Amino acid sequence: MRRIELALTADAVNPRLVYGTACVVIDVLRASTTIVTALANGCPEIIPVETPEEARTAARARNCLLGGERGGRRIEGFDLGNSPLEYRQERIEGRPIAFTTTNGTRAIRACASADMVLIASFLNAGSILQVLRVQDHDTSIVCAGTRGKPSLEDTVCAGMLLEGLNTRLEAEAVSLWRQHSKNLAQMMKHASAHGRDLMSLGFEKDIDFAARADIYDIVPILENESIVRKQS
Amino acid sequence: MRRIELALTADAVNPRLVYGTACVVIDVLRASTTIVTALANGCPEIIPVETPEEARTAARARNCLLGGERGGRRIEGFDLGNSPLEYRQERIEGRPIAFTTTNGTRAIRACASADMVLIASFLNAGSILQVLRVQDHDTSIVCAGTRGKPSLEDTVCAGMLLEGLNTRLEAEAVSLWRQHSKNLAQMMKHASAHGRDLMSLGFEKDIDFAARADIYDIVPILENESIVRKQS
Repeated sequence: MRRIELALTADAVNPRLVYGTACVVIDVLRASTTIVTALANGCPEIIPVETPEEARTAARARNCLLGGERGGRRIEGFDLGNSPLEYRQERIEGRPIAFTTTNGTRAIRACASADMVLIASFLNAGSILQVLRVQDHDTSIVCAGTRGKPSLEDTVCAGMLLEGLNTRLEAEAVSLWRQHSKNLAQMMKHASAHGRDLMSLGFEKDIDFAARADIYDIVPILENESIVRKQS
Repeated sequence: MRRIELALTADAVNPRLVYGTACVVIDVLRASTTIVTALANGCPEIIPVETPEEARTAARARNCLLGGERGGRRIEGFDLGNSPLEYRQERIEGRPIAFTTTNGTRAIRACASADMVLIASFLNAGSILQVLRVQDHDTSIVCAGTRGKPSLEDTVCAGMLLEGLNTRLEAEAVSLWRQHSKNLAQMMKHASAHGRDLMSLGFEKDIDFAARADIYDIVPILENESIVRKQS
């Protein structure tokens, strides 16, 4: 079983639907890319905060580096901006970073009701999928977006995760559907073993009929051990 | 939120996972195609039974027609086989049908723990999707298969439903991922408004870096309001 919820902006997050889930936050350009890079290069801990002032307070208390942006640029007096390329090992190894960005921090806050919050970018999408596949929570995917609107790169990264979360069985079924959707009758007559059995019994016309998509608006439903038409 | 469970044969059904779901049974060749056709042509009720003897008992009690197959052929003494083309209005209108087939009936029985059991074929897949989209249950899809093995045509029909159950948002995200997966950097530099903003600020190298898929096996996780590396 799997349950997936997708929000394309932080504002679109419904806390009730995120509640109890494993929540993946995506801000490809650039907060989540930068966070992944910082951790990969030896930063032990990133403290996401809302404002530059909160970042300065955290830095005084804990000897952090200051990182983040406003309007895409490094904040005045900060050690680092929001460019992943700044977060090199020699600058950040062993130092916590108090970090504030325009959209990414808000997205993380919007996921407060989740059981687990993970940060995803293209850089680490495969590892995120590995974690999501083996854990028991339902999944929510929250894109940061940009100034309240969806960002293409976040949506594309979410699409990559969604495709990857299909089970092997489901992915195979969808792939077979795509492969054969243009000619269902041929698929049944030639590629299906059961179809070939029916051909040899003389039931080719049944197959042609079975391949006629959406000719009936009938929904059969089991009620009291009989199958009847579902009333709409 | 959605939750979907797929079984490619009746034997693969896990009653715990089907419990409480809206369950769709698929036996394209031919039981579900025939059931849909019979209801479309005026049969008020189909009584699925396991054996020809049960069918005869039901027919005596309720003045049913007898329908079904063994080895693909009409059962001796039965009014109808398992060919949808036999279930014409002039033969079946107004008459209940006691119905037994090799694989389809077993699949229906395997879904006993579901809250709702629907019967799907290519003929009525669009209407089945309409019902699944507006109901609140989780969904299970149970393919009948043939003699304990998956049937290609049932799997393809399941794939069609699975694809159709993606929300518009999810389908759009997956489609954008497929469209841009081969060149993420170009997507961000040219198609993304936020990426173009960053380009104009001089951050092209950040974009090139953000596009490098799976270079890190880092899973950042929020713990006690800090982001740290998830321990595996």
